[in-house]
Amino acid sequence: MKATLIYGAGDIRVEDVPDPKLQNASDAIVRITHSCICGSDLWPYKSREQTEQGDRIGHEFIGVVEETGSDVGRVQKGDLVVAPFFYADGTCEYCRAGLTSACPNGNAWGADTDGGQGEAARVPFADNSLMKLDVPHDSELMPSLLTLSDVFGTGHHAAVSAQVGPGKDVVVVGDGAVGLLGVLAAKRLGAERIVLMGHHKDRTDLGREFGATDVVAERGEEGEQNVRDLLGTDGAHSTIEAVGYDQSLSTALNVTKPGGHVGIVGVPQSGTIPNAARKFMANITVAGGIAPTQANMHELLPDVLDGTVEPGKVFNRTIPLDETPEGYRAMNDREALKVLVRP
Amino acid sequence: MKATLIYGAGDIRVEDVPDPKLQNASDAIVRITHSCICGSDLWPYKSREQTEQGDRIGHEFIGVVEETGSDVGRVQKGDLVVAPFFYADGTCEYCRAGLTSACPNGNAWGADTDGGQGEAARVPFADNSLMKLDVPHDSELMPSLLTLSDVFGTGHHAAVSAQVGPGKDVVVVGDGAVGLLGVLAAKRLGAERIVLMGHHKDRTDLGREFGATDVVAERGEEGEQNVRDLLGTDGAHSTIEAVGYDQSLSTALNVTKPGGHVGIVGVPQSGTIPNAARKFMANITVAGGIAPTQANMHELLPDVLDGTVEPGKVFNRTIPLDETPEGYRAMNDREALKVLVRP
Repeated sequence: MKATLIYGAGDIRVEDVPDPKLQNASDAIVRITHSCICGSDLWPYKSREQTEQGDRIGHEFIGVVEETGSDVGRVQKGDLVVAPFFYADGTCEYCRAGLTSACPNGNAWGADTDGGQGEAARVPFADNSLMKLDVPHDSELMPSLLTLSDVFGTGHHAAVSAQVGPGKDVVVVGDGAVGLLGVLAAKRLGAERIVLMGHHKDRTDLGREFGATDVVAERGEEGEQNVRDLLGTDGAHSTIEAVGYDQSLSTALNVTKPGGHVGIVGVPQSGTIPNAARKFMANITVAGGIAPTQANMHELLPDVLDGTVEPGKVFNRTIPLDETPEGYRAMNDREALKVLVRP
Repeated sequence: MKATLIYGAGDIRVEDVPDPKLQNASDAIVRITHSCICGSDLWPYKSREQTEQGDRIGHEFIGVVEETGSDVGRVQKGDLVVAPFFYADGTCEYCRAGLTSACPNGNAWGADTDGGQGEAARVPFADNSLMKLDVPHDSELMPSLLTLSDVFGTGHHAAVSAQVGPGKDVVVVGDGAVGLLGVLAAKRLGAERIVLMGHHKDRTDLGREFGATDVVAERGEEGEQNVRDLLGTDGAHSTIEAVGYDQSLSTALNVTKPGGHVGIVGVPQSGTIPNAARKFMANITVAGGIAPTQANMHELLPDVLDGTVEPGKVFNRTIPLDETPEGYRAMNDREALKVLVRP
C-alpha cells in the first residue's frame, strides 16, 4: 500500500510500504478513506533532522474495517469508523477515568503502528479505539466526523480544561484549526463572550461563524490590553491556549483573571510554561494537555451527526494521497487552514 | 516604635520608626504581640541588593487593637486579633469569591503599610482584615493561631489547589514550615497516604507527627522513583509544591499521576514552570499561588481553637524583637525551622 513518510524538515514522501497485517487478537485492519494533515504534523515538518529512513506520519483518519482479530466483536468488517489520534486499551485506570491519552498501552499513530496518512492501518484495541459511524460512506458529514479524531476533540478538551461553561467569558489564543474549534467547543458549552486572538482574517471570520463574539488581531501587550478592554474586566474566566509558543502561553496567562483557568492544548515548544509570576500571583490554574479524543468523541458525536456543530468547516482543501507533500507545503505556508487527504 | 528593616542580603536591622497613625476611616492600629519570620522573608535575605534606605519586612502577626477608625465596628479596642499576610477589602469580586489575595485594594504588609516584624502596625480594612481571637492573651494556642496569618493557610491552600481529599494519595515536596503544614492540611482534608519529600530528619519527624505516612529523603530522579515505588502507582493524585525551585517543581510533576493536580505555593524562582512536557503529556493540572489566608482562616480557626490541629509546632525558637537579625541568620542556616518574634 501507499503511505506518507517524513524524512526531514520539508521532506515528505508518499511511498510503497508493506500492507498492514493483524498482529494481535484485538487488532483490526482499516482501509482509510479520509485522512488529514494536523498543525502538529508541521512541527517535524519545520524542524525534523534529516534521516535516511523515513517515519510514518499522520494521526487522524476515517475508514472501513477490512479485517478483524479474533477478539474483536463490537466493530465488524464493512463498518465505517473514525479513529482517535491516540488509541487506547479502554480498560486501564486512565481509560476508565476518561483520560484515554494517558493509557500506558496506547500510543499515537505512526510510532508502533501505521501512520494515519496512508491507504490502510492496523488498529490496536479495535473495539475500544474505533468509533462506529452510522452514516452513508459518502455522507457530507465526513469532514466534520474526521475532526473527532483530533482537532474538535482537542478544542473541546481545551475548553473543558479551561472550565468553560454557561455565562463565562472565554479567550481563545490562536486561530489555527484547534483554536477555531476551541471557539466552537466554547460556544457549544455555553460561553457568553468568546474573544478570539488571531490575525488571519479568513480564519478569524470562520471563528466568528463558530461563535467568536470578538476578534483581537494585535499580539503581545497591545493585544492583551485590547482583550481586557473588550471584556471590561481583569481578563477572562477561561482561556484556551492553542499555539504552544512562549509568547502565546504568556498572553494566555495575562488575559485570564485571577482565579481563572487556562486550558493548554498547544504543545509548549520551549519545554517550560513562562510567565509563572502571573500564574502564581493571580492563582491561575493551568490545565490541559494531550487530548483524550477516544473518550470525548462519545460526547461530541451526536452534535456532529445532527448538524448542531459543523467542525468540518476547518477543511479548506482536499487532495489525493499522492499530493500529501504539497498539502504540507500549503499548510505550512498558511495557504490552507487544514488539508483533507483522500487516499 | 521599633520595627525590623532589611537593607540588603544578610542585612537586617531593628530601628526606631514613626509610630503608625490612622490614615483611613477603615484603619485600625494594632499593637503587635506575636510575629514571626517566614521562609519567603529569606528570599530577599539571600539576594536583596544593598540600598541606603531599608524596607520594612515581616507579614505575619497577632496583636491587640489599640485604636480604630470611624468606620471600624466589628473589631474594637482591646480585641486580640490575627492578621493575614495579605490584607484585603473584603468587598471586591475576588474577596467575595474567597480569593482575597487577588484583592486590587489589598497588599502584603510592608509595601504601603508597616511590616509585621515590629511593635505596631496600621491595618487597612480592619473589619475585614483582622480575625478576632476569643482566647486569653497568654493562651498556649498563640503559636498555632499565628500560623493562620500565612503558613498554615498557605499549606491549606496548596492542599485545596492540589484537590486533596478523602482517600487520595498525596506527595508534599519540601520540608520547610509550609511543606510540613501542607502535610497537616492534607491529613486534615482526609488524605490516605501522604509522602513527604525532605531530607532534614528533625523536620520530616515533625512531618510524620503531622500525618506523613512516608518520608523520601532522596532528591531528583532517585527520589521520584522512590515515591512511585512507595505508592505502587504512576504517582500521586495530588502534589503540594512548597519550595519554588525548578528542581522541586519538576519533581512535583514527575511524582503526580496522569490527570492529577499539583498545588504550588512556593514562588517559582526561575519565573517559569519547568517540565512542561510532563505536564502536557500527563494532563497534570498546575494550580495554586499566593494563598488567600484572609479567607481560609475562617475554615481553619475552629480546628486550631479546639486543638484538632497544632500547626504552631513549626515554631522551634522564640526571640525578642531586638534579636530579629539573629533569627534570620538561624532560619537561613537551617538552625531554626521557624522563628517566633515577641515584640
